[in-house]
Amino acid sequence: MPRSLEQPAAKRGRPGYDQDSVLNVAVQVFNKYGYDATSMGTLAHNLGISKSAIYHHVPSKGELLRLALDQALVPLEAIGEDERALTGTAEERLEFILRSTIRVLIERRPFVTLLLRLRGNTEIERTALDRRRAVDRQVAELVVKAQEEGSLRRDIDPRTISRLLFGTINSVVEWYRPGGPVTAAEVEENAIRMMLDGVHSRNR
Amino acid sequence: MPRSLEQPAAKRGRPGYDQDSVLNVAVQVFNKYGYDATSMGTLAHNLGISKSAIYHHVPSKGELLRLALDQALVPLEAIGEDERALTGTAEERLEFILRSTIRVLIERRPFVTLLLRLRGNTEIERTALDRRRAVDRQVAELVVKAQEEGSLRRDIDPRTISRLLFGTINSVVEWYRPGGPVTAAEVEENAIRMMLDGVHSRNR
Repeated sequence: MPRSLEQPAAKRGRPGYDQDSVLNVAVQVFNKYGYDATSMGTLAHNLGISKSAIYHHVPSKGELLRLALDQALVPLEAIGEDERALTGTAEERLEFILRSTIRVLIERRPFVTLLLRLRGNTEIERTALDRRRAVDRQVAELVVKAQEEGSLRRDIDPRTISRLLFGTINSVVEWYRPGGPVTAAEVEENAIRMMLDGVHSRNR
Repeated sequence: MPRSLEQPAAKRGRPGYDQDSVLNVAVQVFNKYGYDATSMGTLAHNLGISKSAIYHHVPSKGELLRLALDQALVPLEAIGEDERALTGTAEERLEFILRSTIRVLIERRPFVTLLLRLRGNTEIERTALDRRRAVDRQVAELVVKAQEEGSLRRDIDPRTISRLLFGTINSVVEWYRPGGPVTAAEVEENAIRMMLDGVHSRNR
């Protein structure tokens, strides 16, 4: 039987959960055991409430997953619709998207972790993965445009560049910890510098 | 009930499994459902053999995990003990380690995927994570040395550089597929160029 995570233990037996706090605990439990391995019973145990009390907040484990994934996907999708992602040179738009993505990764870390670890075993997971791929596709298209405008190196295939860029920034959710020796602003600045210096056209 | 994965389905009911082939199927099943969510029953189903037949090959699910993780950890640890990781400039040693790591990632992809997704819920997982961290530490130390020798940029904290480098190369297991449009040799060459151009000292 899994031990409770820190946050819910303090709240055990107390009333007053709302959907947001259920979501915050659920995402921790999903990340710790994996979505497939987490039962509503495990969730109830970690929340310190009964299974029927969870059903008061959400109709199913799948719906809880959908709501948790929205906490990552909605802000990630918003980046691509921002004015700054749609105007300017491809290089400027790319930098805006990469910076903003790092910010969302840090602000919504547990939810993005959940998104990045999805296995695609259910329809809800596959829908979320499709939405994530649409976000990735926008970056891949910008890399092509930036190569065409001459700001990005052309000796590497654009799909590979875009995948390695996402690999670099997605790793932030694995190792960044708030309150650690490196601030969120430093992570953003350093990752951007390393990535852009690595992909810039060599002849400028 | 999970459907069988492709490989075992073809073998269903056939005798002749050895420990290696049990391991190859087990790692696929662990990666698909997560280690915690995989029971010996699920493994037996996917192997197309009985639970007792699995116990003929390995004493427990934990031992199966340990053997599978060794398939990733042993070659990763061997890189750091190679002559080329121990002699030459820090920059040369770093490049050797990064290149070799990408090669192991590609050659042992399912096993490295398993390693990278570990959650640390059991002693076997925690031991494997410790061994992985020792490998990471060697790179972190080389980054410091390369900054000291003047080949790597000093405006970014060495831990951040080393984590972003691992983020970049570890992502390869997520998207590289053998037989795809980009060869393993191209992935290695392109990732190395992007990474080294991103971290080299600016004044050369």
